[in-house]
Amino acid sequence: MKNKKFSQIDASVPTIRRLPSYLNVIRRALNNNLKVISGTVIASELELEPIQVRKDLAVTGIVGKPRVGYDVKELKNAIESFLNWDKQHKAIVVGTGNLGTALIGYPGFKQNGMNIVCAFDSSVDKIGKQILGVEVYGLKDLKDKLKNEKIDIAILTVPSEVAQQVTELLIETGVKSIWNFTNEKLKVPEDVLVLREDLSSSYAVLSVCQ
Amino acid sequence: MKNKKFSQIDASVPTIRRLPSYLNVIRRALNNNLKVISGTVIASELELEPIQVRKDLAVTGIVGKPRVGYDVKELKNAIESFLNWDKQHKAIVVGTGNLGTALIGYPGFKQNGMNIVCAFDSSVDKIGKQILGVEVYGLKDLKDKLKNEKIDIAILTVPSEVAQQVTELLIETGVKSIWNFTNEKLKVPEDVLVLREDLSSSYAVLSVCQ
Repeated sequence: MKNKKFSQIDASVPTIRRLPSYLNVIRRALNNNLKVISGTVIASELELEPIQVRKDLAVTGIVGKPRVGYDVKELKNAIESFLNWDKQHKAIVVGTGNLGTALIGYPGFKQNGMNIVCAFDSSVDKIGKQILGVEVYGLKDLKDKLKNEKIDIAILTVPSEVAQQVTELLIETGVKSIWNFTNEKLKVPEDVLVLREDLSSSYAVLSVCQ
Repeated sequence: MKNKKFSQIDASVPTIRRLPSYLNVIRRALNNNLKVISGTVIASELELEPIQVRKDLAVTGIVGKPRVGYDVKELKNAIESFLNWDKQHKAIVVGTGNLGTALIGYPGFKQNGMNIVCAFDSSVDKIGKQILGVEVYGLKDLKDKLKNEKIDIAILTVPSEVAQQVTELLIETGVKSIWNFTNEKLKVPEDVLVLREDLSSSYAVLSVCQ
């Protein structure tokens, strides 16, 4: 991932990717009224090495007490703050097929600060309707709709053939982070971050093990 | 991933995860009637180091010719064969909400050997209907439906609350590979492979960069 913004972050991508699973464990501990949790317990829950857990969690600024562990509430707040999940992120969904619709309803997003403010589609059947309370606008109105609104994340779920073209439209409106669910490798300027979600990667792992 | 089957595979998970993106590049080259492609070109296309590309592709048994590159057709066949994507994989989708429906229609699957033979749901509104040609059966009929059919991959898109219970049902019917799209960490016997697809991981990377 060659991106300016990204190179300023003081943690590796694999570490960041693991933080949500730590947060899951910690939130469950909090729900069970645990005050303290040891790195070893977290490690065994997630099938990781304890040393990995300690290193990963250190990026949040929290260090466990030897032979005691982590303060559950403090650790929860630290992870949420590191991930910026204690703040709101304005997002749009571009392309409201089944995948776009599924993402609008994905429970893990709202709970972690993602606020899908609206969606866009080119199909007249969808424009003007709502999906789970989220208004769908025409793609041709995207520029106009977003001119006074700073969008943090654009979730791209359009057909691959139009992905690059829609991306250019998004960049023109000032979008700096794109979550790309299409099959296209998008060409973007250096200050735009694209994260590609490729389900084929996991399918590859499953198929190799057949 | 602690799994018996997996420990027999002679390639790392990150390498396997990258192979589909190599395959995309190679297939595009083939469509453009290229006979040969250099490791450096593949590397720059995917923003990887050339040495990484050479190492990754070596797991397929194919080595590029110095100053020439890889035979495109040979490399395509080698990656497909390594991934078992030249064979059919019988899959079922369990839970036909928006996400399950999106996955039934995901274009990258069919093209790579995944054959979704049927789907299951507990909702009477869905049972007996078809989604993009795939028949939906009741969850209560799952055991009966699968008793004479060997399923390679079960795609789990049920609500998290019932994920463990449905997993146990799947294991009873002999399913050995589960692609878990729920938020639950599933408990399974050692000979069952679970791959969890957690969209929160990517969302974490995007949120950290805000």
